[in-house]
Amino acid sequence: MARRGAFITLEGVEGVGKSTNLVFIGAWLQKTGKVLVLTREPGGVPLAEQIRSLLLHDAGKPMPPLSELLLMFAARAAHLDELIWPALARGEWVVCDRFTDASYAYQGGGRGLSPACIGDLENMVQGSFRPDLTLLLDASWEGTRARREQRGTTDRFETEGKAFFDRVRAGYLERAHAEPGRIRIIDAERELPEVHAQIEKELSIFCNSFYNQ
Amino acid sequence: MARRGAFITLEGVEGVGKSTNLVFIGAWLQKTGKVLVLTREPGGVPLAEQIRSLLLHDAGKPMPPLSELLLMFAARAAHLDELIWPALARGEWVVCDRFTDASYAYQGGGRGLSPACIGDLENMVQGSFRPDLTLLLDASWEGTRARREQRGTTDRFETEGKAFFDRVRAGYLERAHAEPGRIRIIDAERELPEVHAQIEKELSIFCNSFYNQ
Repeated sequence: MARRGAFITLEGVEGVGKSTNLVFIGAWLQKTGKVLVLTREPGGVPLAEQIRSLLLHDAGKPMPPLSELLLMFAARAAHLDELIWPALARGEWVVCDRFTDASYAYQGGGRGLSPACIGDLENMVQGSFRPDLTLLLDASWEGTRARREQRGTTDRFETEGKAFFDRVRAGYLERAHAEPGRIRIIDAERELPEVHAQIEKELSIFCNSFYNQ
Repeated sequence: MARRGAFITLEGVEGVGKSTNLVFIGAWLQKTGKVLVLTREPGGVPLAEQIRSLLLHDAGKPMPPLSELLLMFAARAAHLDELIWPALARGEWVVCDRFTDASYAYQGGGRGLSPACIGDLENMVQGSFRPDLTLLLDASWEGTRARREQRGTTDRFETEGKAFFDRVRAGYLERAHAEPGRIRIIDAERELPEVHAQIEKELSIFCNSFYNQ
């Protein structure tokens, strides 16, 4: 029976370059011979993608924060059940664009919901399952200005402004400082080759330790 | 300032005659001079109605039970926040076609999720808020055959069959036996005038006690 694969998540606020770096991570891991699944949250399976449209669509008035949080976890439960857990069990590696750290950062830091409440849902939906490695792309509001301005479309989260951005970023950094072994901070304000070099270093260290566990 | 209105819920499995009796309850309460809001779950406000379509639509494969439960509570959080609580605070009475007892009956009894997990979500979303009165329309699988057969359309819950029906019904009755003061069982297999007479009696008793609280 195949050994279970690793679950790697990529986190960060809007405009830090997640998409570009997700491609880099995927290509790097594939070169080492892994069977890879690249996926995203909220989303990844049909039900969760439908929930994603509810979440990102601007209905003209704010959604109650608790509804937002519960929708995130409803999508996550289906994503885990139908895609992530079966893939890992087959020995595949799964790289996911955002996961539960984003719930702590956005619905906790950003919307002010209590970490205890998010933790209850995390345990309910995931049991003891957590990412094996999380790469947190970190940048300031100023450092993400260029990418924000390039984008044509904006969703409900992207139009929240600087105060929300700063609370989400602080939420992410708090998570990283609490779990420095799992969550590795990548300085996303540097030039792309340097960002890639740091990601590569983190992935090398992780792959070695994951195989020697 | 107006005194808060009462929150009355109507529960029961498919085919027990909830729609007919909801209108009867509404008409009866209206005659006593209440300003009434008639609503339903999942639904009642735009976000919750969108979640309702996700929940009732048959996507061709079963939804993970935990996603179903979290979607129900995501809809409920919006329903409470945007409709039920503001209406009650204005002194209006709210009559709701299904509420959290249905989560215990369907996702608990029907799908096998633990009552403890449902209770955690109930406390998270509702705090200590509970219905003031719940009328449970109770009937057997045989007793609801006629109504089931009359219906043209069937949703994901309506096509589950007798075993599921029986588990949901048992889930409801267990709730009623645990909270006999709040949840009143109405025998829905009797002739409609008798059902109405029993509902009328329960409403009279409730209205007297609610005003004398």
